[in-house]
Parts: sequence; C-alpha cells; structure tokens
Amino acid sequence: MSKSTGCCQGFLHYVFDYETPKTLIIPSIRVGFVFRFTQFLVLLYVVGYVCVVQKAYQETDSVISTVTTKVKGFAFTNISDMEPRFWDVVDYNIPPQGDGSFFVLTNVVMTPGQTQSRCAELPNPSTTCEDDCDCVEGYNDPRGNGIRTGLCENYSSIVKTCEVLSWCPLEIDTKLPKRALLAEAENFTVLIKNSITYPKFNFHKRNILSHINSTYLKTCEFNRKTDPDCPIFRLKHIVSEAGEDFQDMAVKGGVLGILIDWSCNLDWWGRKCYPKYTFRRLDNKHPDNNVAPGYNFRFAKYYRTAEGEEVRTLIKAYGIRFDVIVFGTAGKFGIVPTIVNLGAALSFLSLVPMVADWFMLTCMKKRDLYSRQKSTYLVEESEVESASMSTTYGTQ
Amino acid sequence: MSKSTGCCQGFLHYVFDYETPKTLIIPSIRVGFVFRFTQFLVLLYVVGYVCVVQKAYQETDSVISTVTTKVKGFAFTNISDMEPRFWDVVDYNIPPQGDGSFFVLTNVVMTPGQTQSRCAELPNPSTTCEDDCDCVEGYNDPRGNGIRTGLCENYSSIVKTCEVLSWCPLEIDTKLPKRALLAEAENFTVLIKNSITYPKFNFHKRNILSHINSTYLKTCEFNRKTDPDCPIFRLKHIVSEAGEDFQDMAVKGGVLGILIDWSCNLDWWGRKCYPKYTFRRLDNKHPDNNVAPGYNFRFAKYYRTAEGEEVRTLIKAYGIRFDVIVFGTAGKFGIVPTIVNLGAALSFLSLVPMVADWFMLTCMKKRDLYSRQKSTYLVEESEVESASMSTTYGTQ
Amino acid sequence: MSKSTGCCQGFLHYVFDYETPKTLIIPSIRVGFVFRFTQFLVLLYVVGYVCVVQKAYQETDSVISTVTTKVKGFAFTNISDMEPRFWDVVDYNIPPQGDGSFFVLTNVVMTPGQTQSRCAELPNPSTTCEDDCDCVEGYNDPRGNGIRTGLCENYSSIVKTCEVLSWCPLEIDTKLPKRALLAEAENFTVLIKNSITYPKFNFHKRNILSHINSTYLKTCEFNRKTDPDCPIFRLKHIVSEAGEDFQDMAVKGGVLGILIDWSCNLDWWGRKCYPKYTFRRLDNKHPDNNVAPGYNFRFAKYYRTAEGEEVRTLIKAYGIRFDVIVFGTAGKFGIVPTIVNLGAALSFLSLVPMVADWFMLTCMKKRDLYSRQKSTYLVEESEVESASMSTTYGTQ
Repeated sequence: MSKSTGCCQGFLHYVFDYETPKTLIIPSIRVGFVFRFTQFLVLLYVVGYVCVVQKAYQETDSVISTVTTKVKGFAFTNISDMEPRFWDVVDYNIPPQGDGSFFVLTNVVMTPGQTQSRCAELPNPSTTCEDDCDCVEGYNDPRGNGIRTGLCENYSSIVKTCEVLSWCPLEIDTKLPKRALLAEAENFTVLIKNSITYPKFNFHKRNILSHINSTYLKTCEFNRKTDPDCPIFRLKHIVSEAGEDFQDMAVKGGVLGILIDWSCNLDWWGRKCYPKYTFRRLDNKHPDNNVAPGYNFRFAKYYRTAEGEEVRTLIKAYGIRFDVIVFGTAGKFGIVPTIVNLGAALSFLSLVPMVADWFMLTCMKKRDLYSRQKSTYLVEESEVESASMSTTYGTQ
Repeated sequence: MSKSTGCCQGFLHYVFDYETPKTLIIPSIRVGFVFRFTQFLVLLYVVGYVCVVQKAYQETDSVISTVTTKVKGFAFTNISDMEPRFWDVVDYNIPPQGDGSFFVLTNVVMTPGQTQSRCAELPNPSTTCEDDCDCVEGYNDPRGNGIRTGLCENYSSIVKTCEVLSWCPLEIDTKLPKRALLAEAENFTVLIKNSITYPKFNFHKRNILSHINSTYLKTCEFNRKTDPDCPIFRLKHIVSEAGEDFQDMAVKGGVLGILIDWSCNLDWWGRKCYPKYTFRRLDNKHPDNNVAPGYNFRFAKYYRTAEGEEVRTLIKAYGIRFDVIVFGTAGKFGIVPTIVNLGAALSFLSLVPMVADWFMLTCMKKRDLYSRQKSTYLVEESEVESASMSTTYGTQ
Repeated sequence: MSKSTGCCQGFLHYVFDYETPKTLIIPSIRVGFVFRFTQFLVLLYVVGYVCVVQKAYQETDSVISTVTTKVKGFAFTNISDMEPRFWDVVDYNIPPQGDGSFFVLTNVVMTPGQTQSRCAELPNPSTTCEDDCDCVEGYNDPRGNGIRTGLCENYSSIVKTCEVLSWCPLEIDTKLPKRALLAEAENFTVLIKNSITYPKFNFHKRNILSHINSTYLKTCEFNRKTDPDCPIFRLKHIVSEAGEDFQDMAVKGGVLGILIDWSCNLDWWGRKCYPKYTFRRLDNKHPDNNVAPGYNFRFAKYYRTAEGEEVRTLIKAYGIRFDVIVFGTAGKFGIVPTIVNLGAALSFLSLVPMVADWFMLTCMKKRDLYSRQKSTYLVEESEVESASMSTTYGTQ
C-alpha cells in the first residue's frame, strides 16, 4: 500500500470508526422496574402535562382586534331642577362614533347660559372676603374658578366673596342628584361587533359567529347560560355580572370593562376559537385613597346669541365608561417549540440511567457484585506510579 | 498514614476520581456512515431550520406605537334633497384629532330643526292607530322613537299613528341616497405618521424613513410598486387594495383596517426594520347574519333659537372608519433562547448513538459478533443465585 | 418449564434486563478537576444567569390596561388679535372624555364667522389672476381652499385672485402667534388613573398604590425623587423630563408619550410590581423630512344665525397630545419553562464527560494508558474478515 492510501485509510478510520459504550446487562427485575418506572414518569410528564395540558408544542400569537359598538335606548327625565327632557343615544352616548370605549351618561350637572364675564366666587374659606383689600387682582387660585378681579362682591345676602373673571355663572356641582337622572339607562342595550386577527396564522374571526342568523340577532340578548353567543348586551346585565349595582354606580359614574377573551387553539385536530365575555369594574369603588371617585368629565355646548356673544351650556357628565378590552393568545402546532420541549424531555430521560445506577449500587443486596463488574479501576502498569499518585492526593 | 489523611484521601477519590465509559471501537464503514449521517441530519436541522429559518436564537418584544393621521381634501355636493354645500375636512372627518382611528363621512341623512316636542310616530304595524285608545300613555317601545303621549294623530292624510314625545321631527333614514353623497371622498388623501418603540431593545423608529426628504413627501402618494415608503395614502387606493369598491362601500359605510406590520430583525448582522402596509376590510360585507350592515353613527349639532329654545340638527353619518392597526415583533440575539435551542439540539444528538447501536445490532451481518463484544451478561458468583433469579421472574 | 413460560421469561428479560455502561475509574486529580470544573461552569450558568438574572423559569403575560385622565387648570389670555378670554378645561382639553390620549390646546388660529359663500382665494402663484379667463369654473385645486366659481376678484387693493366657493372668510394660518397663546398651560396638572390586569395570572393593580392616602393625593405632584408614586403630573415637568422645552413645543404642538412600564415579578418570594413612569417626545422635532411639523388639527363650532344660516368658528388647534402608553410583562414561576431550561442545562452537563475525555486522551501524559484501557478494538474472529474490511475502506 502506498503512503497516501494509508493516510486516507487513517482518515476514514477516524471519521467512520464507530465507538460504542460497552455495557453490562443486569437481569434484576427490581433494577429493571426502577429503570422503567422512572422512564414512565418522565414520559407521563411529557405526554400528559407538556403536550395535553400546557400545549407547549404550540407557537403562539397575540390578538389584533377592532371593535364597533352601537348603543340603543332612550329615556325621559322629569325632575324638579330641570325641564322635562327626552334623551336619545345622541344625547347620552359620548363620543358618538362607537369605538371600543363608549360612555353612557347617567347623571348630570348642567350650568346653562355661561358667558365670559365676572361673578362672585363660590364661598369657601379661601374665597370669602370683607372688602376689596382681601382680593388680590390677577391672583389665580388653582383650586378656584377664575382670575380674581380684585373686587369683593355679594355672593348671597349673607356672604361676600372675591369676584373672578370666568365663565359665569359658576358651576355648582355639589347638588348632584342622589338618584341618577337617567336611571332608565339600565335598560339600554349595546351591540358589540368585534373582528379579530391572528396575523402569524392568517386567521380572522368575528364575534358574530357564523351559525347565528339575522332573525336571532334582532331579538336576542346576551345571557351566559341561555344566549352565550349573542353580541347584544343589556347594560344592567353587564354591571350586575361585574358584581355591582347599576343604580349605585350610575350616581357617580365608573369605568366598566367588557373583557373579550379570544384564547384560541388553531390546531386542526382540536380547533376551538370562541369569544368569552367577562365583565369587571375597572375603577375602585370605595378605596381609602380615592381622589375624584367615580367617573365624570365636563363638556360644553357652545352657542351664539343674536348679538353674537358666545354662550355655553356646561355639562358635568357622570356616567359609566364601558371599555371593550380584547385579549387572547392563539396557539398552533409549531416545529420549534415541539423540538425544544421534546429535547428537554429527552434530557430528563438521559437522567433515568443515573437514577437506576444509583438505585442498583446503593439499595440492592448484590451491589458489590454489580459494582465490581460495572466499574474497573485503572490498572497502572507500574505500582510505583500508583503509589506516587496517592502521595500527590495526600500532599495537595 | 494517619486516619484523617485516609479519610481526606477517600473524599478526594470520591470527588475527583473520573469515571468514564469503556468503549468498543467498531471499524465498520456502514455503521460509521449511519452514525455520521444521523448526526448530520440533526445538525442540519439546528443550523438550517432553527437558526436560519426560524431565528429561534432571538429574544422577542412586542411593538408599542403612536399614530397621528391627517386627512386632506374637500368636496362640493349639490343634490336635490339638500342645499348645495361645500365640505372640508372639519365637516367630514370625525373625530377631528387625527388618532389612529379616523372616520370619513361619505353619506348622510340629515334631520334639521329637531326640538323637544311631540309628533306622530313613523308608521309601522305597531304604531298605527285608529283612535287614542290604541296608544297607551307613557309606553316606551324599544323599537319606537319616543315616549307615547296617549294621543293618536295624523301622520299623513292616509295613516294615523300614536303621538310620541321625542326630538321632532323624527328622522326618516330610509331615504338613504343610493349613490354616496360624498362620492368625491375617494380622492381624499391621508398622511399617517407612526412612531414605534420596542422597549426591551430600546429601539425607536418612524414610518417616515430617514432617506425620505421633504420635497418627496409633499408630492408622493403610496403605491406598493413605485412608492412603497410614502406615508400618504389615497383613500380610493386603500379601499381597492383591500379588494373593495369605494363607491359601493361609501353608500352604507364600513370599517377598513390599515395594518402596519413592523416585524423587525434587530441583529446587527442582518438588521431589517421597515413598515409593511396592508389593507383589509374588517366588517363583513354581505353576510347572512349581519345586523346593521355597514358603519354609521348619529351625532347632532345643537343650536339655540333667539327665544332660547334648544334645536339640533341630527346627522346620521355613514362612512368609512379607517383603523390604523400597528403590530409586529422584533427579534434580537438572546443568550437564553440560544442556549435552550442548542440544548434541545444536543439532546437529539445524544439520541444518535442509540440509532447507530440499533442499526449495528439489527441490520448488520456481524451483529452477533458486535453484540457479544459490546454487552456482557452479569456473571453471577454462584449458579444457585442465578437459578433462583430465573424462578423469581417465572413466578411473578 | 413450558414453552409459554419460556416466552414470558424472554419478554421479562427484554423489558426488565437493565443495561448499564461499563466504566473505567481514573484516579487522576487533573482529569477529575477538569471534569468537576466544567460541571461547575455549566451549573453556574444555569443557577446564576438563567435563574437569577434572566428569570427564565417564569411564564410571562402581557399587560391589559385602562386609563382615565383628568386635566386641571385654567388660563386667561389677552392678546391683540383676540378678545380677552378665560380658558378652562372644557375649552382647551379635546376630547373631553379623559381617555388614555388627551390633547391640551396651547396655540390657536381662530376664524370666526365662516359661512358657505364665495370669496377670493388666498394669493399664491396658482391662484392670482388678471381676469375671469384665468379662473376655470368648477376647478378643484387640491392645494386650494374651495371650488372655483370662474370669477377673478380683488383679494386686496393690490392683488386679484380667483373666487372660490367655500367656507368664507378663508382661514389665514400663517399668522400663528410666535409665543404660544396658552403659555400658562405649563402649569396645568393631569391626574392619571391606570388600572392593569394580567389575565393569565388573574392579577389586578392600580397606579394609585394602596399605601397612598387621600390627603397626600390632594396635594402631591409627581417628582422622580421625592414623589415617585404620585399620579398627578405637572405638564411642564412631563415635557422637561422628555428633554423638551414646554414653551418651544407649545407654539407648533407635538406628541408626547407618557410611558408606564408595569414589568412585574409575581413570584411570591420576590413580588415586585410598581408602575415606572418615563416620558418621551414621539414626533420628530426638527427632521429634514418633516411634513406638517408639530401637531395640530382643525375643528369647528357650528352656530345658526337668527335667520337660520349656518355659521361656524373654525379653530386650528395647535397643542400637545399626551399619549399614555402602558406596557409591561409579568413573570411568574411556570413548570414548563423551568423544565425546558433545566433540560437545556442538563444537555450541556451531558457534554461535560466529552470535554473531560478529550482532555484525558489528549493532554495527559498517561493518555496512551487511558486510551488502551478505555477503548477496545473489535476483535474479529477471523483475520480474513478484518483484511477484507480494510480493503473495503481502501477502495471505496
């Protein structure tokens, strides 16, 4: 044989010689049982827990969603402070566009006829005065309602307060009706249309499921037991499922979450993808640390008088803001997570022989026999070396 | 040697004695080939699929985004039912703030001059009446338009209906123009400014890319082929890319998603991070189960007459709501996912010897020779024990 | 023994015979040290980096959040172009609902008294004319302000421009005040209420922490050092923390992000879940490629004159849009990620013997001794076979 052939053969031996561990077969049913049982436990975890319960073989994606809402209902109010008034959706639903967050007005403090002018401040310790000297002109009290003109005026026949430049007459929001003005709002309904996408899986779905027909939709009303798929919700029902009382909440307002859970399994063998509705109050009800409890905001309707002066009706609107919150995760078989989880399981399987070895060499009667045949001590070719080795250990 | 030295040596032996498996080298090219080939397959999966295709070595983060939009264009309408009217962005774009969701009005049913008063209901089977007895005072029909006063009035010369307390005159929304009022809206344009953040990687970017200059932006218009980076979109183009016809959609309205995909690779060796625009209609077009097809909402402009009476113009606005939906995931090399995926791959590599062993002991001619030299049966020191062992197996 | 018993025994042997690798024990402190040290490194990575630093044993969930905001403050403006005017929150805060995105008006171009009528265009090269022939009737210039009537009218005593049908008088937005009209807006404050949910862990929390009492909330103001938990922010402070100057930004407007990071650790042994506020300007300040720099939008207040004509006040509102952006990830001990990461670590531990073997067989003096006792070459039963084997290698 030539030299190059020899070299080539050496390389082939290096690459293709297969080195396999020598093994000792132990015909003990106990050891075998421990081995198989531990294997079984690991497999049980992998198949049972990782695959079936956790579905860890799935890739996941987060939901993308659009919501449109449409509130229906009207009410008639007739209380002493206000003219009788008919309210339709345009009056109480703000903003009107029907986004995922909509507000239903339930209580109101109206201050009509405000103009840019001067008036006496609302009386409180820092605004009452004896004469003009008590009122600094141009002073801008952050808790007040306007810029002081420097005059001290009669607020009522009893009390004098500093005059301010502001939108007058000032709003008096302490006379909030104890019973909500639009108590009837509890019977309003809202239609929620929600369409979702899982972009990674190119999956689209709507909350109006395909088996629902138009006739059903015209009359149905959401009920967890009888009509769990109906996308029309009575406001009272939403609030009571959130554990609150509508009439209580209506007085000072609040924020209520309509949570739509779109957790989906998109594997073809177990496809399941339905919206699940839950309701939860999102602001705190009676905490110790609540500033501005409830939910309200002010807005105004601006008018012009015949003389061209700007007049506004200031409205402090109390009500319930409904936030439609869509969340969820879709899972679908993915090769990478499968491999990763299988790999982790295999790692644990490779621990099983260690457990069995430990059991065999520790707990079995014949452990010495096993140990002698399994492990061989390195046989030094000269006893001197061996002795020096021991010395090395001893002195280090 | 003292006792403690012996003990210490024992400990050192326990900790530092290295136990390595004895191996048998098999110089068979077939077995070697099976071994190497299986190894190669595993490596191919790891390098090729996990690293290159799936980029499983990356940590990921979800996008955070802000959107501002600005619509431009105006239109002039001159139809028989309405006075000639000029529409600018303030008239048709609701809400005006330019959020991620904006609405362009395309069709309208206007009911001017509504006041809180009494009028005859719109005629339908449940509202027509013969005389006052048919109309229950105070009855509040959820499908009706107001609270009944108990009177039966002439709706027209032919039909009598119950009188209601409501905003009168009532809206008649059945006369919706067949051709959209603001058909010209298809030529309006919208500028979308979108700035995103991946907080985990402290990465910020805007959809107006840095190579775009001001001159280009003043004249450009998005086109997937010629101007894929221009952030100015013609509404007609958006709608037609979503597979819809603008004029069709404009009549009854709809919801259209402008999806911006910010999937990014932030590794320095392969950095790629551009917005990708797609368009999709988000509401259903002609489903069987559609209530309130299209997209519309009502709002009103409130006025006061010289006498102080509140008057409103009710507007039922049909139009297209454009929802700018920003999504995406950024990936960047991360040590933990890399280790996890490498670990999983190593686990599979540790399976390779099993495959080779199985091949060697099953498919090779010399399998008995290999088997004899690889595995040794435990040699019992007394034959009696061995026999009893067999019996144990047999009787259990 | 019967045949079936034999078969059964065979099966038992097959299932329960335990095959364990034969090992060679090498009492070398060097090899032992390399082995243990490598093991230690892997364990260090697992315990130190994966568990402590990266918390890779945790399952994660994304935050779901609701935000309500309430702006406070008022201002008085008295500039030459406009009547003295008092501004309260209803005037400058748009939209009024107090969502996660709110706008504070700081500068304004008002065009009162617009009606649907005809007027001369604003002069620019494409609108100036000599006589009616220069103006095409019905022409709709996208950069213009209305539809041309075909007449050429005096814009001023010097220049003639084409007449358009539009909301007249036209807005002249070039006279934007150099100093922001509502410069005082910097002292307005905003209360941000934010409640979050991690649905996977059923965890709810608010940014008004439980140890904060009502008295504190009434007087506090956010300050990173002294009051990091106070949810009331002075606008000037927000803007300056974002590295901007309020008065600069107020002139042309802008978008400012209030980022709330709710990254949480929900393990019971290290629970930590607090909001962390940061502020960042989201639009570009002075880029080369900026169209429509700053942030503004137009809206109008609609009136009716005594004669029933519709009049509007057009308002081009410049100001700062504050976007409250809530993000974060919660982590909590999870069995699947723990197992996956442990599995990966175990895989690396199974590499350790390879490293030790390589060290033992390459770097040690007694490598030949070790090699001889560790590995056995397959002993062919006939030398002929062995020779043919070599030949096979050589010729392939």
